[in-house]
Amino acid sequence: MPAVSPLAPAAFPDLPVIGGVRFSAIAAGVRYKGRTDVMLAELAPGTVVAGAFTRSATRSAPVLDCQAKKGGASQGGAAILVNSGNSNAFTGRGGMEAVAQIAQAVAGALGIGADRVFTSSTGVIGEPLPWDRITARVADLRDTLDAAAIGAAARAIMTTDTFPKGATATVRVDGRPVRIAGIAKGSGMIAPDMATMLVYIFTDARIGHADLQALVSTINDRTFNCITVDSDTSTSDTLLVAATGAGGVDVTGSADFAAGLEQVMLDLAHQVVRDGEGATKFVEVQVTGAASDADARKVGLAIANSPLVKTAIAGQDANWGRIVMAVGKSGAQADRDRLGIRFGDIWVARDGWRAPDYSEAAVSAYMKRQELVIGVAMGIGSGQSTVWTCDLTHGYIDINADYRS
Amino acid sequence: MPAVSPLAPAAFPDLPVIGGVRFSAIAAGVRYKGRTDVMLAELAPGTVVAGAFTRSATRSAPVLDCQAKKGGASQGGAAILVNSGNSNAFTGRGGMEAVAQIAQAVAGALGIGADRVFTSSTGVIGEPLPWDRITARVADLRDTLDAAAIGAAARAIMTTDTFPKGATATVRVDGRPVRIAGIAKGSGMIAPDMATMLVYIFTDARIGHADLQALVSTINDRTFNCITVDSDTSTSDTLLVAATGAGGVDVTGSADFAAGLEQVMLDLAHQVVRDGEGATKFVEVQVTGAASDADARKVGLAIANSPLVKTAIAGQDANWGRIVMAVGKSGAQADRDRLGIRFGDIWVARDGWRAPDYSEAAVSAYMKRQELVIGVAMGIGSGQSTVWTCDLTHGYIDINADYRS
Repeated sequence: MPAVSPLAPAAFPDLPVIGGVRFSAIAAGVRYKGRTDVMLAELAPGTVVAGAFTRSATRSAPVLDCQAKKGGASQGGAAILVNSGNSNAFTGRGGMEAVAQIAQAVAGALGIGADRVFTSSTGVIGEPLPWDRITARVADLRDTLDAAAIGAAARAIMTTDTFPKGATATVRVDGRPVRIAGIAKGSGMIAPDMATMLVYIFTDARIGHADLQALVSTINDRTFNCITVDSDTSTSDTLLVAATGAGGVDVTGSADFAAGLEQVMLDLAHQVVRDGEGATKFVEVQVTGAASDADARKVGLAIANSPLVKTAIAGQDANWGRIVMAVGKSGAQADRDRLGIRFGDIWVARDGWRAPDYSEAAVSAYMKRQELVIGVAMGIGSGQSTVWTCDLTHGYIDINADYRS
Repeated sequence: MPAVSPLAPAAFPDLPVIGGVRFSAIAAGVRYKGRTDVMLAELAPGTVVAGAFTRSATRSAPVLDCQAKKGGASQGGAAILVNSGNSNAFTGRGGMEAVAQIAQAVAGALGIGADRVFTSSTGVIGEPLPWDRITARVADLRDTLDAAAIGAAARAIMTTDTFPKGATATVRVDGRPVRIAGIAKGSGMIAPDMATMLVYIFTDARIGHADLQALVSTINDRTFNCITVDSDTSTSDTLLVAATGAGGVDVTGSADFAAGLEQVMLDLAHQVVRDGEGATKFVEVQVTGAASDADARKVGLAIANSPLVKTAIAGQDANWGRIVMAVGKSGAQADRDRLGIRFGDIWVARDGWRAPDYSEAAVSAYMKRQELVIGVAMGIGSGQSTVWTCDLTHGYIDINADYRS
């Protein structure tokens, strides 16, 4: 196992109990030995579930199943079961059968409909999922459900993650508290649409399915879809947001609730980047002055995905020529002679030319920081976008040159 | 300097003299010390020059200048001057001034028009080009011109290249020989549109400008625009093809000439990949059965540019799940249940599922080879494309984490 990422938060946060949700985790031996690898979240009757998923054309069986189940009103309870170690992707007809077996086992154990059991799988692609190892433990998972066990759930879904990821926010709506808590996994195969991640967020808010889905889709576009580790897009990306209504507060149309949800989603998105495979630097790319927001995002992602930019950052080299290169290849409208580039507050290029006053010593000192901002001013419009990424290091090669074997 | 790539050809080829072309190379100290860094090619009166260039929005001053000069008929002679060590890209108005100074100096020395002097620059982006170091040596370059010095020219244009690149073909048209010889540089910042390269090809054929340009554009699309090392696209990519007519053979419409030119272009394109920074494996990605050729190319490039695929290859791991991932993220039309994947002749996946009969031992042995074929059968149409790339290794990080400093 690699050491914990140097960019990891100091500790797993203290997540509040969310009314209407209980968790359990177990070591089922799906692939890993000596660690938990399956989590179950039980959701109270009336829970509304919204989501967002990978747009991969080769998405996994659990993703296809979740997409089919997501919509619609809820009467009875619901559940989320997630395993690590095997992604149940590119597993043909057997993949859907595995999902069905697991959903039926959970439905039976919890007395709910199988169409209300959402599953995710993460890990190796193309190997049959030994679903019987999971179904054999569903009764144990049910019997150990605990409202305070969200941290154990976060640990059970890790693959190459070096730390478990959690985030929380409590907002007040109509003077009453609404709690939000979420967990995530993901550290490689991370690129928008969505990043390679599994994310589960729980709230005791009361909200209709369509309203929650609209909120999740909008916020997803500026959080999880604005991070990239390696430009590779998973077959399994899943974000599920479950609102139990147990707190009794209707949050429909509440800007405060939206802000709280965005805070949790952005925090988890950043943690995924902070656990980017081999990462030693956390990088925020701020693009302004583009012809459109979409163009700004193209530029931001071209920079964030460029191996040459990412290796320069790893080398603590303020190689802004490679940023010029990435702007040029992005496909966005650009005018070289209006372009400006900065590291933090230090402008290194302006008006298509090296900034005359820039101090190589100052920028070199800046590049030694663990958290960096790259600013690109396109100078041609008002489009803007922010994208987050990490550097590309020997650690990434170490982790990925021999993952499957 | 890194050692020579393990994928390099055994030796620089024996290139024939091309009638109407003479070369020289010199150490002008543009940036490097103790090596040649400027080459000059003098082209006889009547030479026709065609080309292809990077589509970067931040392309360099020499590229913009070449694009402006390329078209049109030729009466007097022409010349190509190339320096390494500094790309004269993102150098503002001073960049165009540097090009003009060099072109005038060469024009004066050779007694030709400045509008017939093509220049290229390769190396660091964003630093002013010390053009006076080049113009000071133009007389020396002229005085040492030699029809047999093409190898010296190939060495002078290298940057992080570990070997000089040359290729040749001689074809017979109307029973008479037509000679083609080319040189190239490039090993990082390599991606289609075009790869980060400089390529100069010379032939003694006689052909009109429009015919030569059409041929170059067509062949470029299936050679240099089908290679990728790291998905990054240079600001300086330049391909120039000069036909001197000195052999007296008109090749207009000759399929044999087209085949010879394609052979030289493909050979040079492959050599650029073989010198990919840190490369230890040469990989051909063959995509067939796609909805269209364009879709097949999307799939091929998604595989060839995937850091996860490339690190798996470096690790000699037949991780075909990552190929499924890359197909899925490519944006091409795909049907998971018709998809087949092979390494060489070993099918590892078929019909959306692991091939039942595949031998892990056989495929593991195959992955130890230095030259690999990845085959993807999409199973939905007749579109096809072949793309070439290399693996992603610690060597790439070593070279690029500290290039500028």
